[in-house]
Amino acid sequence: MRAPVLGIVGPGDDATPADLRAAESLGALAATAGWIVVNGGVASGVMEAASRGANGAGGLVIGVLPGSDDRDASPSLSVALRTGMGQARNNILVLSSDAVAVCGMSPGTAVEAALAIRARRAVVCVGATAETRAFLTGIDAGRVVHFVDTPEEALGVLRSVVSRR
Amino acid sequence: MRAPVLGIVGPGDDATPADLRAAESLGALAATAGWIVVNGGVASGVMEAASRGANGAGGLVIGVLPGSDDRDASPSLSVALRTGMGQARNNILVLSSDAVAVCGMSPGTAVEAALAIRARRAVVCVGATAETRAFLTGIDAGRVVHFVDTPEEALGVLRSVVSRR
Amino acid sequence: MRAPVLGIVGPGDDATPADLRAAESLGALAATAGWIVVNGGVASGVMEAASRGANGAGGLVIGVLPGSDDRDASPSLSVALRTGMGQARNNILVLSSDAVAVCGMSPGTAVEAALAIRARRAVVCVGATAETRAFLTGIDAGRVVHFVDTPEEALGVLRSVVSRR
Amino acid sequence: MRAPVLGIVGPGDDATPADLRAAESLGALAATAGWIVVNGGVASGVMEAASRGANGAGGLVIGVLPGSDDRDASPSLSVALRTGMGQARNNILVLSSDAVAVCGMSPGTAVEAALAIRARRAVVCVGATAETRAFLTGIDAGRVVHFVDTPEEALGVLRSVVSRR
Repeated sequence: MRAPVLGIVGPGDDATPADLRAAESLGALAATAGWIVVNGGVASGVMEAASRGANGAGGLVIGVLPGSDDRDASPSLSVALRTGMGQARNNILVLSSDAVAVCGMSPGTAVEAALAIRARRAVVCVGATAETRAFLTGIDAGRVVHFVDTPEEALGVLRSVVSRR
Repeated sequence: MRAPVLGIVGPGDDATPADLRAAESLGALAATAGWIVVNGGVASGVMEAASRGANGAGGLVIGVLPGSDDRDASPSLSVALRTGMGQARNNILVLSSDAVAVCGMSPGTAVEAALAIRARRAVVCVGATAETRAFLTGIDAGRVVHFVDTPEEALGVLRSVVSRR
Repeated sequence: MRAPVLGIVGPGDDATPADLRAAESLGALAATAGWIVVNGGVASGVMEAASRGANGAGGLVIGVLPGSDDRDASPSLSVALRTGMGQARNNILVLSSDAVAVCGMSPGTAVEAALAIRARRAVVCVGATAETRAFLTGIDAGRVVHFVDTPEEALGVLRSVVSRR
Repeated sequence: MRAPVLGIVGPGDDATPADLRAAESLGALAATAGWIVVNGGVASGVMEAASRGANGAGGLVIGVLPGSDDRDASPSLSVALRTGMGQARNNILVLSSDAVAVCGMSPGTAVEAALAIRARRAVVCVGATAETRAFLTGIDAGRVVHFVDTPEEALGVLRSVVSRR
């Protein structure tokens, strides 16, 4: 049986320090727990933090890059997938994940969270604002979204995802 | 100079009667005003209503279908593009549009609205709820989103988009 | 019933004068016969020639562009679809076509011809070399490929495609 | 520095015994030499053989699947990427590879070989027919294609690719 796959998504350059801490910590915790970590691959924001966390914990980190080369790739990736598809790559990231963790919010992050809800992936939002909670709850017909305050709580949700496989 | 392109997005089977009325009316108004209408192409919900409205007004209607055949295509399309890309097609619809009108809300609609905000397309939300307004305003760094109550008001926003080309 | 769609593919900057003449002539003939013409959209080579021919004959011409803007688009397009997907766009062009005409050869043209054979679209190669004939015949398990010498002969094949719809 | 990535492509159900032997052997040789192996991911033909070979040698194997689930995935994959993009996924496979090995020929294989030539990836064809040699040589403006008779010779070409990185 293949290892479970966790997508970690969030803002790039506009990520807050709290977003970055959550992403790095969750990347490390998930890798330690045996998850493969997938993200958008770029050396920026939540993508970079998640890659660094998972890589530092000895995990496998797969970056699904927007470009056709890897000039902007994080140095912490195990594999850099060059999609050449821009933002359409987000659908690959989401479909390939068994669960998607959301750290922070931005237009691209909203795309990924909504794609995950549509594809009925388990979604875990760490430290979401009231606006994000209200909006995502409103479109969550499949009841797949969880709101948590810490990476540790997020890992608890991931454990329940694995036990249901 | 090519005609301007309006993407009309919204829920499929879960669209409300108000969503459908807005989409059909806006499709007709935009076509009459010389816009090409693009949508997700399926014979369902806001896609079908927008296609019917634009086609009835003599406009050109392009459906960007998720599948690799056109079995589920609206009969009101002028051209049925078979992408075979599922939800990744939404990025093509958004990038190809000069403005994106949002009628109603669903996970797929949220994807399209967020992609449009990210790509800095003009976004016009017709009859949005308070939750949608708060959330989209929060991620609208480029200030591209407009909230209106009627298709006629939406057309006013579209006129200003054309005048800036 | 929607109009039939003809994809016209071939080299860009490396197209020969014969490729360009065939593409422009076939674009005009097909548009006159009621076909919508689809191509890669760029103002170069066979794409530009096919667009010019079809547009000059009053036809609808849809460009499926590789980029996320339309800076390199042919001025003869009716609609410029901005896919932002690079060469992955070729699959959309092929799937959306009822028949694919091949004028000349290049790596990108080989991609499109092989995708069309795989998707069992009718393929018409105008003026193919012996090497191209031998190779495409070898992978044509569905017997969808036709080799002709002139655009007029190609149009004859297209008529038989329409009569089978 | 990340490990080099080898794409291994070839026919699915129509692969010959020689294609399968070449793919499995090359998968094993490349994995042993430190390459990550990427392929189309399906449990069929050259994809399955390459996955089994690389997995058996302890290598990392990434499948870039056409579908949005992994029902048809090879059991030998380390990671199953669910693209939901059908044949458009081939461009991701090619762009993500530092070299592409071609074992056998089919419409899908021709797509991948031509995409690799277009993207100027090193291409190694094992046991190609005279028709394939003539055609690929004709479109190889960048002189990236190598023709070899055995997986061992292919590995020699891969060594030279790594030494040029």
